[in-house]
Amino acid sequence: MALGEFDLIRNFFDRPGLRSHLNDVVGIGDDCALLSLQPNQQLAQSLDTLVEGVHFPQKCDPCLLGYRALAVNLSDLAAMGAKPHSFTLGLTLPDSNDIWLQSFSDGLAELASVHQVGLIGGDTTRGPLTISIQVQGTLPKGQALRRNGARVGDLIYVSGYLGDSAGALPDVLRGEGPKNARTNEQSYLLERYYRPTPRIALGQWLLENGATAALDISDGLLGDLGHILKASQVGAELKLSSVPVSKELEGLLGSEKARELALTGGDDYELCFTWPDQKKLQLPDSLLADNHVTCVGRITSSSGLVDAETGQPLSPQAYQHF
Amino acid sequence: MALGEFDLIRNFFDRPGLRSHLNDVVGIGDDCALLSLQPNQQLAQSLDTLVEGVHFPQKCDPCLLGYRALAVNLSDLAAMGAKPHSFTLGLTLPDSNDIWLQSFSDGLAELASVHQVGLIGGDTTRGPLTISIQVQGTLPKGQALRRNGARVGDLIYVSGYLGDSAGALPDVLRGEGPKNARTNEQSYLLERYYRPTPRIALGQWLLENGATAALDISDGLLGDLGHILKASQVGAELKLSSVPVSKELEGLLGSEKARELALTGGDDYELCFTWPDQKKLQLPDSLLADNHVTCVGRITSSSGLVDAETGQPLSPQAYQHF
Repeated sequence: MALGEFDLIRNFFDRPGLRSHLNDVVGIGDDCALLSLQPNQQLAQSLDTLVEGVHFPQKCDPCLLGYRALAVNLSDLAAMGAKPHSFTLGLTLPDSNDIWLQSFSDGLAELASVHQVGLIGGDTTRGPLTISIQVQGTLPKGQALRRNGARVGDLIYVSGYLGDSAGALPDVLRGEGPKNARTNEQSYLLERYYRPTPRIALGQWLLENGATAALDISDGLLGDLGHILKASQVGAELKLSSVPVSKELEGLLGSEKARELALTGGDDYELCFTWPDQKKLQLPDSLLADNHVTCVGRITSSSGLVDAETGQPLSPQAYQHF
Repeated sequence: MALGEFDLIRNFFDRPGLRSHLNDVVGIGDDCALLSLQPNQQLAQSLDTLVEGVHFPQKCDPCLLGYRALAVNLSDLAAMGAKPHSFTLGLTLPDSNDIWLQSFSDGLAELASVHQVGLIGGDTTRGPLTISIQVQGTLPKGQALRRNGARVGDLIYVSGYLGDSAGALPDVLRGEGPKNARTNEQSYLLERYYRPTPRIALGQWLLENGATAALDISDGLLGDLGHILKASQVGAELKLSSVPVSKELEGLLGSEKARELALTGGDDYELCFTWPDQKKLQLPDSLLADNHVTCVGRITSSSGLVDAETGQPLSPQAYQHF
């Protein structure tokens, strides 16, 4: 069955929450979308693909899926300090199911409205359920939070609590969502998995106020911090006891397992950034309220990542062998 | 099995033919790609997804697939009159097969080099074979070949020969490629299917010289011309005997069937454009040599599309019932 592409787009995706919030964009309905930038802007772009059975379980709530698919992409913009601009959607579906599409579109629109990011184009095709979103944001020309700017002595910070998504994974694989979880702790963890918070405002503030490097933690703190170290050609020491763990994760799994997930678990979409030692990190109240930011270590001139207390090397593989 | 994403990108896609040809792009290796525009430019973007078993057969030659996936996307830029700038690749693969990846990357790089369009980012995931390409090009600010600009009296032109891809389809579904075709005619048709020609230079010339509307023919001339008529709120008469058909298609299928495929068959990726009646279409020699351009009809004030000779209504559905 061929999807009636034009009707599908009109019915489910050309709606207020998803229509572009920008006046200078020509959206859905021509061969290409058109967009302009201000002379002092550049564009940051990121693409993420989610595949059923690989990145989310079968029969996943489509509303959660729509929210999450956009959230993980917006998180890449946050990591560069970019302001969300617009996105495109490549949606491959086994069949055209109106209830599924309405719910998926609701989830997308909910988060798109928050960040004023409009859907400007895409493609819908028939096949195994796959969601590809490319999001783009604006940055002042010549500026971005890159991975390669960390310098010896910088302090290392993370936002939020780590490991929650990894803690939710067994429930996710059983097909559970925040609403049908068995305990409050599990509901909280599932909420963190399905509705991660793209740290957009924090990323922009960090760019404007002099953070030296940043990325979003999608594959676990140890591995992702490793990308900053490699790109910046520096090392780091990490204070394991400072790595922020939620009381829900600790309550459910105990402190040792919670710490392991916080260091190696994926899908948190929190920011990890470096900040000059000589400069106090003084977040404005609005950001303090929304972002739990913790110093977890320091950039060093040695190579690789070590435990600040023992001096032992840390790697995602090594830690998982504990 | 998880694909080793970083190695995969480095090994197969970070190579001369695909590296961005632009100095103002930060490509593969950070959270986002960054790009800038000149102050007088806007960006045109288009996304197409190809799914194995839906848009191409199983065990399809990956080199042809790489070429075709980029070609169908570049065709959307051609239809807007845009100059190719860069592209991103979302590649979902059942497993990490080096021979497949090398060949796919070869096909991509061959066409990318021709149009100087660089791969600036993407995502590789595990799952059923799916290729999502988003291509972007530049246009002078405020200008584009839209679908809604056709005016009563305009002449309607198409590039190339139509129906060839539809004529190749039975062979495509049997898993044949241009190199193992049984006859020269079939080899020609398969070449047109797998290696369509994005009419980039023609599109840019049409924009600069005053074409009133354009699109690329992906779903058949009758249906796609219908999009121009609807967007422009006009009608058209089509001279069926003028619709260009290759001698190979006619030789293989006879003139009646060839004509039917030329009007309703998809996947040609030729341009259909409208041109002011009072202005002679005088293509420069360089474009004349590469693009076979034919006048096939005229825009009218009536509604819908009719046969210029009989006055009978034409629709993709009606014609296929002949």
